[in-house]
Amino acid sequence: MKKRKQRRIAIYGKGGIGKSTIVSNIAAAYSDKYKVLVIGCDPKSDTTRTLYGSRIPTVLHILKEKKEPKVEDVVYVGYNGVKCVESGGPEPGVGCAGRGVIVAMNLLEKLGVFRESLDIIIYDVLGDVVCGGFAVPLREDYADEVYIVTSGEYMSLYAANNICKGIKRLKGRLGGIICNCRGIKNEVEIVEKFAKKIGSKVVGVIPRSDLVQKSEIEGKTVIEKFPKSEQAKIYRDLAKSIYLNKDFVEPKPMSIDELEKFIKNLYNVS
Amino acid sequence: MKKRKQRRIAIYGKGGIGKSTIVSNIAAAYSDKYKVLVIGCDPKSDTTRTLYGSRIPTVLHILKEKKEPKVEDVVYVGYNGVKCVESGGPEPGVGCAGRGVIVAMNLLEKLGVFRESLDIIIYDVLGDVVCGGFAVPLREDYADEVYIVTSGEYMSLYAANNICKGIKRLKGRLGGIICNCRGIKNEVEIVEKFAKKIGSKVVGVIPRSDLVQKSEIEGKTVIEKFPKSEQAKIYRDLAKSIYLNKDFVEPKPMSIDELEKFIKNLYNVS
Ligand SMILES: Nc1ncnc2c1ncn2[C@@H]1O[C@H](COP(=O)(O)OP(=O)(O)O)[C@@H](O)[C@H]1O
Ligand SMILES: Nc1ncnc2c1ncn2[C@@H]1O[C@H](COP(=O)(O)OP(=O)(O)O)[C@@H](O)[C@H]1O
Ligand code: SF4
Ligand code: SF4
Ligand SMILES: [Mg+2]
Ligand SMILES: [Mg+2]
Repeated sequence: MKKRKQRRIAIYGKGGIGKSTIVSNIAAAYSDKYKVLVIGCDPKSDTTRTLYGSRIPTVLHILKEKKEPKVEDVVYVGYNGVKCVESGGPEPGVGCAGRGVIVAMNLLEKLGVFRESLDIIIYDVLGDVVCGGFAVPLREDYADEVYIVTSGEYMSLYAANNICKGIKRLKGRLGGIICNCRGIKNEVEIVEKFAKKIGSKVVGVIPRSDLVQKSEIEGKTVIEKFPKSEQAKIYRDLAKSIYLNKDFVEPKPMSIDELEKFIKNLYNVS
Repeated sequence: MKKRKQRRIAIYGKGGIGKSTIVSNIAAAYSDKYKVLVIGCDPKSDTTRTLYGSRIPTVLHILKEKKEPKVEDVVYVGYNGVKCVESGGPEPGVGCAGRGVIVAMNLLEKLGVFRESLDIIIYDVLGDVVCGGFAVPLREDYADEVYIVTSGEYMSLYAANNICKGIKRLKGRLGGIICNCRGIKNEVEIVEKFAKKIGSKVVGVIPRSDLVQKSEIEGKTVIEKFPKSEQAKIYRDLAKSIYLNKDFVEPKPMSIDELEKFIKNLYNVS
């Protein structure tokens, strides 16, 4: 059997834009056919909550209690065998929020987790500040492909453009833009125009659905709780289009003036 | 005339929640009677855009060009005499996003800006990560009172709770919570319950208004563009209630489990 090339995918985006919902659902979608590891890189440490059913201890937290943690102290097996890790973050007001990501990567490296037979590794990374530990998944080539989640709102397009600057700076490879809808007028058209402008494309559009909250409250993904739903199908399609994606680019981020003009034209035109 | 005590106010909150709209409008409201300095502490560097009419060069940017910048290189006088400074941030993917805040504070100190006869200094600080330069306005007592902007959305309450952890950690003084509405059901009730739970109170409720975008597009505050509007009156009232506020607390942030239970009760009850 042709040895599949291990896919290492980083999902970036503004806090609250829908990264963890997307990461957990595509991981669940992959879990039928592939060995998947999900690494939460957000101080909120809730990426894997709907995969494991509840919050899991973070790497930073474990390291406070154990000098030499073992794999099972930090890697938790969730829905359909998906492996879950949360890097965690320091107490607010102390040190560097992104430090947890650096510490987690080093520990997983040391414990040989990356050398286990994994088909797909997915990083869920906070994108409001692209610095310190949050830039690591781009820089230290822990991930080979980056996807950015955005809606049609200015604030999330601003963050997406900023993340493109980080990807370009650190020689990352942008696989595409994922539109997580918030109900903005002409939202998909806006996000498609943005993706084209920065030299990329939209790889998936996720509509709003109340199945997300309904499954989330039970600590489950939509894929697990409503497997036959249209929303589950949409997450499966997104997982597929990412897996089959062959074209990766160095993004062409806009300057702040270009971005402001881009936004003005959108709102005047639509 | 009794020498008024200089007020140093820090406004924190999640990216995109409405901090700069609030900071610029209360600064405009104060400008009739007080000498005001606004310091943007967000890599977006757009806090003072509606006070000055356009973006101003950031401290970090100026320092790349001038070894010894003068006051007028970094302090710009905007609407009705309000002084404007933007700390700026490094290129995404490089160094520490919060560093611009540290650099700006040191430069303003060196240039004696803080020793000028100022009645009110307002810091507009990104609250998604409370670390590095973003924690400075709390820690190095550049500000004596902190107000947190939130909506009824879980994500912004999560950030507000996190900021409370930072304030508590760094012995800051919380003056109150500002509810910037996003149209969530029972929003004001939710934010009031949150404020009470962490030991504080709501000092103002700002409704959504399309006058914000209308004035923003012209590079103006609502106070400047629509001085007689109800929305302008609401910003003036907020400015007043902050100015007259006497009770400051050390916040009692919730643990993550408490916060999740708090959120669940809200959505089940309402
Ligand atoms: N497609 C969707 N439809 C409805 N709600 C959604 C959708 N995607 C995300 N959400 C909601 O948005 C909030 C933020 O999502 P989350 O995935 O936690 O964001 P992030 O990980 O980017 O911070 C969650 O409360 C989630 O329920
Ligand atoms: N009361 C309001 N009504 C309508 N829109 C608002 C209101 N407050 C803020 N906004 C909009 O929300 C967006 C984010 O506001 P901003 O003040 O820039 O947030 P922050 O500074 O917290 O990132 C802006 O586009 C602004 O026009
Ligand atoms: S590098 Fe980024 S995450 Fe780390 S302290 Fe600075 S701002 Fe915070
Ligand atoms: S990441 Fe930035 S703020 Fe954090 S410790 Fe390093 S230099 Fe300081
Ligand atoms: Mg998340
Ligand atoms: Mg702002």
